[in-house]
Amino acid sequence: MKKVVCFGEIMLRLAPVGYQRFEQTPSFEAVYGGGEANVCVSLANYGEEAVFVTKVPENPIGQAAVNEMRRYGVDTRHMVRGGERLGIYFCEKGASQRPSKVVYDRAHSSISGAQRSDFDWEKIFTGATWFHFTGITPALGDAVAECVLDACKAAKKAGLTTSCDLNFRKNLWTSEKAGKVMAQFMPYVDVCIANEEDAEKVFGIKADNTDITGGKLSHEGYKDVATKLKERFGFKAVAITLRGSISASDNNWAAMLYKDNEFYFSRNYAVHIIDRVGGGDSFGGGLVHALINNYSNSDALEFAVAASCLKHTIEGDHNHVTVSEVKALMGGDGSGRVQR
Amino acid sequence: MKKVVCFGEIMLRLAPVGYQRFEQTPSFEAVYGGGEANVCVSLANYGEEAVFVTKVPENPIGQAAVNEMRRYGVDTRHMVRGGERLGIYFCEKGASQRPSKVVYDRAHSSISGAQRSDFDWEKIFTGATWFHFTGITPALGDAVAECVLDACKAAKKAGLTTSCDLNFRKNLWTSEKAGKVMAQFMPYVDVCIANEEDAEKVFGIKADNTDITGGKLSHEGYKDVATKLKERFGFKAVAITLRGSISASDNNWAAMLYKDNEFYFSRNYAVHIIDRVGGGDSFGGGLVHALINNYSNSDALEFAVAASCLKHTIEGDHNHVTVSEVKALMGGDGSGRVQR
Amino acid sequence: MKKVVCFGEIMLRLAPVGYQRFEQTPSFEAVYGGGEANVCVSLANYGEEAVFVTKVPENPIGQAAVNEMRRYGVDTRHMVRGGERLGIYFCEKGASQRPSKVVYDRAHSSISGAQRSDFDWEKIFTGATWFHFTGITPALGDAVAECVLDACKAAKKAGLTTSCDLNFRKNLWTSEKAGKVMAQFMPYVDVCIANEEDAEKVFGIKADNTDITGGKLSHEGYKDVATKLKERFGFKAVAITLRGSISASDNNWAAMLYKDNEFYFSRNYAVHIIDRVGGGDSFGGGLVHALINNYSNSDALEFAVAASCLKHTIEGDHNHVTVSEVKALMGGDGSGRVQR
Amino acid sequence: MKKVVCFGEIMLRLAPVGYQRFEQTPSFEAVYGGGEANVCVSLANYGEEAVFVTKVPENPIGQAAVNEMRRYGVDTRHMVRGGERLGIYFCEKGASQRPSKVVYDRAHSSISGAQRSDFDWEKIFTGATWFHFTGITPALGDAVAECVLDACKAAKKAGLTTSCDLNFRKNLWTSEKAGKVMAQFMPYVDVCIANEEDAEKVFGIKADNTDITGGKLSHEGYKDVATKLKERFGFKAVAITLRGSISASDNNWAAMLYKDNEFYFSRNYAVHIIDRVGGGDSFGGGLVHALINNYSNSDALEFAVAASCLKHTIEGDHNHVTVSEVKALMGGDGSGRVQR
Amino acid sequence: MKKVVCFGEIMLRLAPVGYQRFEQTPSFEAVYGGGEANVCVSLANYGEEAVFVTKVPENPIGQAAVNEMRRYGVDTRHMVRGGERLGIYFCEKGASQRPSKVVYDRAHSSISGAQRSDFDWEKIFTGATWFHFTGITPALGDAVAECVLDACKAAKKAGLTTSCDLNFRKNLWTSEKAGKVMAQFMPYVDVCIANEEDAEKVFGIKADNTDITGGKLSHEGYKDVATKLKERFGFKAVAITLRGSISASDNNWAAMLYKDNEFYFSRNYAVHIIDRVGGGDSFGGGLVHALINNYSNSDALEFAVAASCLKHTIEGDHNHVTVSEVKALMGGDGSGRVQR
Amino acid sequence: MKKVVCFGEIMLRLAPVGYQRFEQTPSFEAVYGGGEANVCVSLANYGEEAVFVTKVPENPIGQAAVNEMRRYGVDTRHMVRGGERLGIYFCEKGASQRPSKVVYDRAHSSISGAQRSDFDWEKIFTGATWFHFTGITPALGDAVAECVLDACKAAKKAGLTTSCDLNFRKNLWTSEKAGKVMAQFMPYVDVCIANEEDAEKVFGIKADNTDITGGKLSHEGYKDVATKLKERFGFKAVAITLRGSISASDNNWAAMLYKDNEFYFSRNYAVHIIDRVGGGDSFGGGLVHALINNYSNSDALEFAVAASCLKHTIEGDHNHVTVSEVKALMGGDGSGRVQR
Repeated sequence: MKKVVCFGEIMLRLAPVGYQRFEQTPSFEAVYGGGEANVCVSLANYGEEAVFVTKVPENPIGQAAVNEMRRYGVDTRHMVRGGERLGIYFCEKGASQRPSKVVYDRAHSSISGAQRSDFDWEKIFTGATWFHFTGITPALGDAVAECVLDACKAAKKAGLTTSCDLNFRKNLWTSEKAGKVMAQFMPYVDVCIANEEDAEKVFGIKADNTDITGGKLSHEGYKDVATKLKERFGFKAVAITLRGSISASDNNWAAMLYKDNEFYFSRNYAVHIIDRVGGGDSFGGGLVHALINNYSNSDALEFAVAASCLKHTIEGDHNHVTVSEVKALMGGDGSGRVQR
Repeated sequence: MKKVVCFGEIMLRLAPVGYQRFEQTPSFEAVYGGGEANVCVSLANYGEEAVFVTKVPENPIGQAAVNEMRRYGVDTRHMVRGGERLGIYFCEKGASQRPSKVVYDRAHSSISGAQRSDFDWEKIFTGATWFHFTGITPALGDAVAECVLDACKAAKKAGLTTSCDLNFRKNLWTSEKAGKVMAQFMPYVDVCIANEEDAEKVFGIKADNTDITGGKLSHEGYKDVATKLKERFGFKAVAITLRGSISASDNNWAAMLYKDNEFYFSRNYAVHIIDRVGGGDSFGGGLVHALINNYSNSDALEFAVAASCLKHTIEGDHNHVTVSEVKALMGGDGSGRVQR
Repeated sequence: MKKVVCFGEIMLRLAPVGYQRFEQTPSFEAVYGGGEANVCVSLANYGEEAVFVTKVPENPIGQAAVNEMRRYGVDTRHMVRGGERLGIYFCEKGASQRPSKVVYDRAHSSISGAQRSDFDWEKIFTGATWFHFTGITPALGDAVAECVLDACKAAKKAGLTTSCDLNFRKNLWTSEKAGKVMAQFMPYVDVCIANEEDAEKVFGIKADNTDITGGKLSHEGYKDVATKLKERFGFKAVAITLRGSISASDNNWAAMLYKDNEFYFSRNYAVHIIDRVGGGDSFGGGLVHALINNYSNSDALEFAVAASCLKHTIEGDHNHVTVSEVKALMGGDGSGRVQR
Repeated sequence: MKKVVCFGEIMLRLAPVGYQRFEQTPSFEAVYGGGEANVCVSLANYGEEAVFVTKVPENPIGQAAVNEMRRYGVDTRHMVRGGERLGIYFCEKGASQRPSKVVYDRAHSSISGAQRSDFDWEKIFTGATWFHFTGITPALGDAVAECVLDACKAAKKAGLTTSCDLNFRKNLWTSEKAGKVMAQFMPYVDVCIANEEDAEKVFGIKADNTDITGGKLSHEGYKDVATKLKERFGFKAVAITLRGSISASDNNWAAMLYKDNEFYFSRNYAVHIIDRVGGGDSFGGGLVHALINNYSNSDALEFAVAASCLKHTIEGDHNHVTVSEVKALMGGDGSGRVQR
Repeated sequence: MKKVVCFGEIMLRLAPVGYQRFEQTPSFEAVYGGGEANVCVSLANYGEEAVFVTKVPENPIGQAAVNEMRRYGVDTRHMVRGGERLGIYFCEKGASQRPSKVVYDRAHSSISGAQRSDFDWEKIFTGATWFHFTGITPALGDAVAECVLDACKAAKKAGLTTSCDLNFRKNLWTSEKAGKVMAQFMPYVDVCIANEEDAEKVFGIKADNTDITGGKLSHEGYKDVATKLKERFGFKAVAITLRGSISASDNNWAAMLYKDNEFYFSRNYAVHIIDRVGGGDSFGGGLVHALINNYSNSDALEFAVAASCLKHTIEGDHNHVTVSEVKALMGGDGSGRVQR
Repeated sequence: MKKVVCFGEIMLRLAPVGYQRFEQTPSFEAVYGGGEANVCVSLANYGEEAVFVTKVPENPIGQAAVNEMRRYGVDTRHMVRGGERLGIYFCEKGASQRPSKVVYDRAHSSISGAQRSDFDWEKIFTGATWFHFTGITPALGDAVAECVLDACKAAKKAGLTTSCDLNFRKNLWTSEKAGKVMAQFMPYVDVCIANEEDAEKVFGIKADNTDITGGKLSHEGYKDVATKLKERFGFKAVAITLRGSISASDNNWAAMLYKDNEFYFSRNYAVHIIDRVGGGDSFGGGLVHALINNYSNSDALEFAVAASCLKHTIEGDHNHVTVSEVKALMGGDGSGRVQR
């Protein structure tokens, strides 16, 4: 059981019932998630001491977000109260040729208005082993970006390993700004996680010959991207998720890990999708758990991919699976036979 | 069928299932309402040509608000698209000694950022008979307050009758500011609607000897308030709703109308509450319908009170009743016997 | 365990969710009921061998009606298949001053098109003790009325006791026709059940000085009605239910039994209503059970009233209570304390 | 924005929850649809001025149908009130080898009893560009068929383009009668829409070598059918939808357009089905929109097929998609990647 | 219509909503099922006189189990009341690579505590043609196993045919004990049903060269197993179901019948799964129906496989299909086209 | 923020939807509660460091119970894993004259099989201020009773204050055994909580002249009971809740506190009930919070009664209210006016 700290936003996710469109639904199903919160819940589910740092409003909606994190075993004592509102995102589930659709209503959230004085990183990191953040957090606002920089420095000082999922969000900032801001943090980052678009959108690093929508994946292209990332920023490890979108209902899912000068490609999973949101985050959560527990490079990758494969079958943002469930799939049993 | 124009905000209302608290609910029931939107739907239900003027974001959530208004027969062609977001309010249903609770998340809404250029009042009022707004609309922002003033002037010019529900909202502005801003519009207002708190909170006009929480109502006090309101602003009519809160489940409900130099007190209804939100708005909707159709003063008051009595038994913000249903209750049949 | 045969209609009842109005609901809750079917389920719940005779269409909706009756222990072997459709009624739950509303869509139902050849009464009545029908059945159509007459005669021949709930339905026939048709069956009826309106609407027999909507009940008036009914038709027993409608949420409920030349008035129950539909039928079910099992006149009345009091607290058309539950209330415990 | 008039039935559709069978479900999800109503909603969603002409009962169920159409932007002023009832159809969702099942309860509906005097076609068509009906409408009754003929003639006189989806319904009439009645309207029809069965069932025109259940489609066969249809009736365009039913969960979906003496075959979509009902109607809606807006023949076909591909992923009868969503799929992106 | 008696357990099945995990769900969907109860409902659905013998507690939960069986036409007069509790199993629906998960809470159930004196087999079997039980029943407890032996002997004496589904449950007993106990019953068994694991786990009989999780099936291996089973116990027929688990969402499904010295292999169905629980039981139900009605061996097998293919598309434990629906699929129509 | 330790059972509560009876409901709403767990959640809601000690099975159902407690801020580190099953209770909501009904299925639960070695009380009590248990815990089994004795002694040794709610459960043990076992713990108990039945059922101490079901309360009788309890066991405080059951929908609710030789009677609340279960526990939770925070005797009683009044309006077992909400009611505002 290692202490891992995640810093970012938690939002109220409002989803129409079943496959209804926004205009059809008489009600919204509510869960509370976000890129870093999702990683944090994954880690709590794996038995780590997972700490989530954010700012939520001092009202029952903010409290509900705290409760949801507590429910799944996350340490919520550093979820600061204050500010204006909890960010919301509306999420409509797609199917077949109809894509899932996200409408963000996250501006003016408490976390986007957070100040450096809101977080005492030295105290937060006491006893911790790992720090995780994503490219979404600094995109929320300049002051939040400063908080991230504070956290990175404090983590380094306290001897933590730091991981970052680049997670570019075009609604929050431009590639230009993202590149500039993110570059500040990279010297403090040990493990870089990205999908095939992030590296290009944030740092202009391109995977050659990769046809994303067609679902074909070029291994050489990904090696290229990982190599360039490592060369530019000196990461200890680079992980790239490889999604092949056949449709909103069916995806191929795999990943690559570049570590200790070796390239590892995971097995590929053909996934029939229940809820695709948080798929990338669940990869991050699996990877951090595996690395923190000294899995072999190959096992770490396979654990992370199997974990995120399972996420696609689970409702909501979070990945509610145990280590033994992930290992069962990683060990080869994807037959889905009833477990009695 | 008369054309009535209502101007104000429409919000997404998110309510926990049944009597659950915010922290308990796995989903939120969604309706779309607001003070002026609710009056507008009432009028559409009574067969008037009801036009709703507002600004909603150009996204599916804004569209859902438009659809809900269309569904109930409102003319939505003047619901302008643009701006940041649809305002939201979370609404937890109370029971017995536990009050209903509203958490507003309405800041930065499209309508609160509306500009004078968004509305062409001359065009909007073409063929119209009546204009209705409430004290909530100008409280949303200074530019919106200017839009209200534009509308008031245009309505006067076009020969419409104008009604205003004072509707003080302490979360949106102070009594001081409310008093100053609202005073600008009053010269254009013909019919003023208020509850026992509004007159005091907005204009400092007090009902003497009225114990609100105790549920006792002093007729003389209300006469006082109405008289003072009329004297200060020259209204043609003043209507005051009289709520006696026994508990969140049971209320007494009545109203007073001061018109043509007479005071009319309605019968009192002991209401067992299904959904109390929009109770005041349904009174306004009933009153406007009755006055526009030349009911006698006494009938107008009784229609408005019976209408709003029924609203308390209906889910959501809107009052889904027909003229004949209101008249049946107004005529004395509150026995609730099954209608086959 | 006595065999009781009920003959009538079973309909699909479609009710909006909770207290929503027809225009609001995204779905309808489905139960299957009808005046005679409800009596039949009551009797099955009390442990009698309850047989329901009707005609339903040979499709899955007809089958669902059969299944619902089977589920609660009714013998469904005489539910004939054929005809056009299952009758439907839409039922909106009222509250406080808003009445419940029923929209019938029952025309052209299989049972309304039933023919005399559809039912072999001699076989149906083999081993039976009691026959029950209501005024709704013959109102469905002239051929069905003939079936009722067949049944009455066969019941008499087979030595059964016959009960009839007058149950006037103004949407199905006029008072004039009802009076003429119903008069044919009365010579075969031993126990007549009615509410204060039925006797007047069907046979022109009026309760003097009874203000129904006001909720006041004149004992003398009811005695009058019962006496006249008995005198005209020679019933062995006349039972009249006494509903005092305070509102759609609260009713007073009691009944009178005239038997063996005595008048019995039950205790009165102040009922907070969950579902009022089937209230009268549950009285009938309780009365038949009590009479068939030789309860004293007073106990029979109290059992029937307690049973129907409980019905008002139960969702759906049927009265899902056991004999011991009814007896507990009849014995005086209406305190509603949790039973562990 | 063009005015398009659709004439036909709107029914209440009652569907069990999820994949439950009729006998299992405790409630029914309610939507309001029908062949022509579905086309009409599609057109409203694409921004056309869509007018729906029908007759519904003057009760809350009829009103709910009106409201549903209004909600999605349809002009409902020509939905006449009166008659007996709203038609109902029960619809059970199939999966894999279990087919979806429809139980009709549509006889005696208000529209089936409509008379020629119910509709003033000259007034209805004022300002209109297009008239659409299907083979279901005249199948409802002889008087309705006369209304259709009136409409066809009035449309021609007013210079509208007329489209007809043959839509054979074996429960409503025989092939013999259908052929005779439908032939009357064909001289007025410009655009004929059919699936591979309709042409045969209505007009005895057969697609050679087409194995429907096997999912294989012979292009030559369809060309044959289209050519014969055009030759017999002189249509300007013939469109045939090509459904390959692999199972209730997975279909292939494509279409052919024969216009300006050219045959166009669309791309094929492998669809994972959410709700298949209204698939053909959504093709019609897409085609009318495309033709009315002067898309190229090839684009018109691809738009219609992409639109109807998306319909299969949407709950209910209606196709709730925008022009830009259809164009995105038509443009080749069927990868289903989340849209943020 | 033949009388068939099934003996075993009926449990309350509690399943999270949709695809939620146990830790996520705010409610549980409730059905009542079990290996033998499921066979019994299948037979009732096919029109047989299906009798279910078990013991349930004398409380409303036990009554609900009785009601569910009654609802679907099962004769419940031999469901004895008494004992401690109704067994429960929690059932979480899997998807794609995530397996369905069953948590049993069945210990101390009424049936597991049943005594030989609870059942009067001679009376129960009067007029019966067939007796069915599974390996689950004797696994519930030693006294229950004695009841099974009593039943087997009484069935033999009364001239019934007896079928047994081996149905090994590792949570209830060891292979060693199962082998010993089950061997006692085999002399009375005419038709033995098993899947590829049961024969090995119960009797140590192994299918050579069969890779279960890989989804490949070796015909020769199954022939081997069937032959050995028949040789050891002298069965008249041996049926083996062949499941190829691709994932929790997709399975291949087929079966083999060994009878009259011939091996019959059914067609294979690629099934997209709605609810896989009860799949094997529905095969048993289909087989018993087919054999009892003298289908040809080949037709009996195809009926049983088609029936169980359909079960995978139906919610809950039971197989709610009719003979004509099964025959339609058996006849080759698995295209899933809408049935109107 | 004080550390409070509660020891007892947590069960899965399964409740039919709305007011349905057990036999009607298609699903059960799931919450996790129990006498001591409910007190514990109350205390967490008031901001105390609430620790819950119990034993739950090592399966997902046990985990769900842990999660529910975590969600509301309870320290769950001493919820030991192991044993057979999580206790269940089925809970049907009553209304008006129909009582709520509880069916227990709690035998063989993990906690009922707990051993003394399962709990290290010295460690558990480190830093704690208060220990709470109820008469339910020792009733679960003899070994559990020994655990309670261990806890009582350890609490005394560690200087904690101990409270006990007598909470007699007739389904778990006899009065005779309860009296004997409970007497062992009383020397360690400082604060004794009871309702009017408990004192008699456990210790044979009777309230004179108190008619429970009639809803009349004799103050003198309660003083008598409290005095006798204090005299026999030397409690520092005795609190007695006074429930007047008018019906399952309406109760009167008040309490008495006997402390420092004074009798305090609280105000009475007329409560319209949403969920009555846990009403007594919420009184205990309020009282412990008030006493631990040194409220005056009178305020402590009023806080506890106001807290439990609010509980009756909240769904589920737990009392989800904040200190400020309780104080608002305690301060006199029970008018239920909407809080914006």
